[in-house]
Amino acid sequence: MSNGADKRKHRSRQIILTAAEAVFLKHGYLGASMDEVADQAGVSKQTVYAHFKSKETLFREVVVAMTGGAAETLREDDEEPLDDRPVGDFLIEVATQQLSVVLAPRLMQLRRMVIGEVDRFPDLGAALYENGPAKSIARLARAFAHYKELDQLSTPDPIVAATYFNWILMGAHTNAAMLLGDTALPGGKERRAHAQESVRIFLCAYGTQQNPKEKG
Amino acid sequence: MSNGADKRKHRSRQIILTAAEAVFLKHGYLGASMDEVADQAGVSKQTVYAHFKSKETLFREVVVAMTGGAAETLREDDEEPLDDRPVGDFLIEVATQQLSVVLAPRLMQLRRMVIGEVDRFPDLGAALYENGPAKSIARLARAFAHYKELDQLSTPDPIVAATYFNWILMGAHTNAAMLLGDTALPGGKERRAHAQESVRIFLCAYGTQQNPKEKG
Repeated sequence: MSNGADKRKHRSRQIILTAAEAVFLKHGYLGASMDEVADQAGVSKQTVYAHFKSKETLFREVVVAMTGGAAETLREDDEEPLDDRPVGDFLIEVATQQLSVVLAPRLMQLRRMVIGEVDRFPDLGAALYENGPAKSIARLARAFAHYKELDQLSTPDPIVAATYFNWILMGAHTNAAMLLGDTALPGGKERRAHAQESVRIFLCAYGTQQNPKEKG
Repeated sequence: MSNGADKRKHRSRQIILTAAEAVFLKHGYLGASMDEVADQAGVSKQTVYAHFKSKETLFREVVVAMTGGAAETLREDDEEPLDDRPVGDFLIEVATQQLSVVLAPRLMQLRRMVIGEVDRFPDLGAALYENGPAKSIARLARAFAHYKELDQLSTPDPIVAATYFNWILMGAHTNAAMLLGDTALPGGKERRAHAQESVRIFLCAYGTQQNPKEKG
């Protein structure tokens, strides 16, 4: 195939994926149809099937692309350089970043859809878990091991401590969005206060410095 | 209607609800059919419709009955008497109870199903939120206000502190079960260790006593 044909094929695939994302997020897996995807993408149904052999294949590709995207934005796949700035500063940065990337309507919709389909597509639930919380926790744990060596943290098991930090930070808002929808998502001011208090709680329990009791 | 007819009617209603619960949890709202509910309940489809006028009505009743049941088991509707035992003992008791009642396959399945249907049934998501996390948090906040008066806690806002405690305790396991299914639910030993560590973290941040850093 010529280079131009390759490019056209890739572009048409991207257009179908974008259309499919919208259709699946709107109707869910069972409610979505390949007709509507074709219609929304402005291509024929045959073209959709030429790229994706079934609704199931297309659904998987949409979910995997969306979960990978968030991890990429957070650059969780990189081995980020660790420095010796205070652990509190590092945590505030991570917390602020994570709240703003993860608590977005598009990702919350994806999460609801995948959770509702976990019995039918257990591998997609697992993929979202691995690309979502598990990746954030692994990134934190790597930093916590570093801060333990610097004697700024006292974490017998960095993975356990990272898991607590992750859910102190993400638990309330993620779960509210799951059950109450995206109108429950916090604004910037609320997110900043929550990041501060989450870091304070965590450092009270796992920090090596004497932490002020009533910062918040 | 005679008393006996009333009782029979109530019994038949309960049988249909039980059958419907199983059918909805297995297939989800869209995948479930009134035929299968009738079949599973051992009654005619007309009998099902005599009690519940549509699949939607039946779905709502099933979800509301299931969410109310868990709150009842935790006796969260009672104004429980508060005493002056140490706050740590109170928290361990609440934590242990809550982990064992909430992290049950039946409730986790319900939660996944309701999350997947939040766009179609926002009121059911809200009902589960109110009967679930919101009720646990209100119960804790009432106790925290009491322990603040006893000078055992330093919580500027008892609801905020109760929300953090709730998600330190419930965040990791609930979310793992949402995405990984019920095989991710923790066993008794893991639940006990997690209850201990959750209480330790919380008291480090909100307790008035000097808390040991490395209890766990």
